[in-house]
Amino acid sequence: MALTPKLQALIESLRRLPGVGPKTAQRMALHLLERDRDAALAISNALADAAEGIGECQQCHSLSETAVCDICEHPGRDRTLLCVLESPIDLMAIEQTGGFAGLYYVLGGHLSPIDGIGPEDLGIDQLLDRLYQGEVQELVLATNPTVEGEATAHYIAEQLSDLDIKISRIAHGVPVGGELEFVDGGTLAHALAGRRQLERGK
Amino acid sequence: MALTPKLQALIESLRRLPGVGPKTAQRMALHLLERDRDAALAISNALADAAEGIGECQQCHSLSETAVCDICEHPGRDRTLLCVLESPIDLMAIEQTGGFAGLYYVLGGHLSPIDGIGPEDLGIDQLLDRLYQGEVQELVLATNPTVEGEATAHYIAEQLSDLDIKISRIAHGVPVGGELEFVDGGTLAHALAGRRQLERGK
Repeated sequence: MALTPKLQALIESLRRLPGVGPKTAQRMALHLLERDRDAALAISNALADAAEGIGECQQCHSLSETAVCDICEHPGRDRTLLCVLESPIDLMAIEQTGGFAGLYYVLGGHLSPIDGIGPEDLGIDQLLDRLYQGEVQELVLATNPTVEGEATAHYIAEQLSDLDIKISRIAHGVPVGGELEFVDGGTLAHALAGRRQLERGK
Repeated sequence: MALTPKLQALIESLRRLPGVGPKTAQRMALHLLERDRDAALAISNALADAAEGIGECQQCHSLSETAVCDICEHPGRDRTLLCVLESPIDLMAIEQTGGFAGLYYVLGGHLSPIDGIGPEDLGIDQLLDRLYQGEVQELVLATNPTVEGEATAHYIAEQLSDLDIKISRIAHGVPVGGELEFVDGGTLAHALAGRRQLERGK
């Protein structure tokens, strides 16, 4: 009764944002209506623009406003290096490090037979076609270090057994700045198994 | 570079929601674009509808889609009882308890000389006019139990010294279901000072 219908509708819709429950949605709605109507309209416009104007890059399947995204079209990127990711969020995380100069391929998920997600849903056929074209010399499998991500990486690697390209998997190990005592056993075992010899000064 | 302009604009705009920082805004934007475009459009429409269609009730200054809100117009409410609040959120909190049958008056803030917010900004003149009309017999001052809220309540009470109406302040005390050891000293002192005699069975 104290909520007007439009306010009720706004609170309901804000609950569809990830991590937003009924209390947070109410607080957001009232904040926008009472203190910042400009923001309400700005968010409304940005959402409509993005939902209608952002599609998928034909080549890497990341988010793009054009048929082929800026990264795939960039002449300075190393076309012999291709990094396979589960989602555009991962792509952004890697781009923000500035440490990767190759191209990307976004699967949009991981293999999950229980949910009926097979290789065809992830565009793995298109990925294999691209690899068989010969331009790519190293494939970096950067799916998440979860059971499903590992399975997806192994599946892709298996499909390429008769292709002479270098296939790598991102390293598992101790996070930089972390403390050993707080690292879980699985990660620590990987960090030890994947140990690298230090270069010694001559 | 990995972010398209529309995505960048969406993330920037989502940061204007209360309690949403850059990481959360990015996660929300990507969730909506990758998994739930319907939600993006639904939120966009709900925001525009609410920002354009919700105004202020002429009588109580709470949020309303009509000139006078449902509560002020409701024939079943007790018009002799008026509760003064800082914001529509407080009104909703009280309405949700179902324990108040009177009318409300929303100030839209509290007195704050430092921020240049005086009685005229809170519609206190209009409140006094209404009280002098004589219909209201009890005024419940339910501003927040903060220094500014208390000051605002005292200011309003002082303006009414020559008017013969009952003025009350919401009780301070121990929250229901709380444990004494976790209640702060100020609240505990109020709870003791405001102790009430128990009705004893005859």
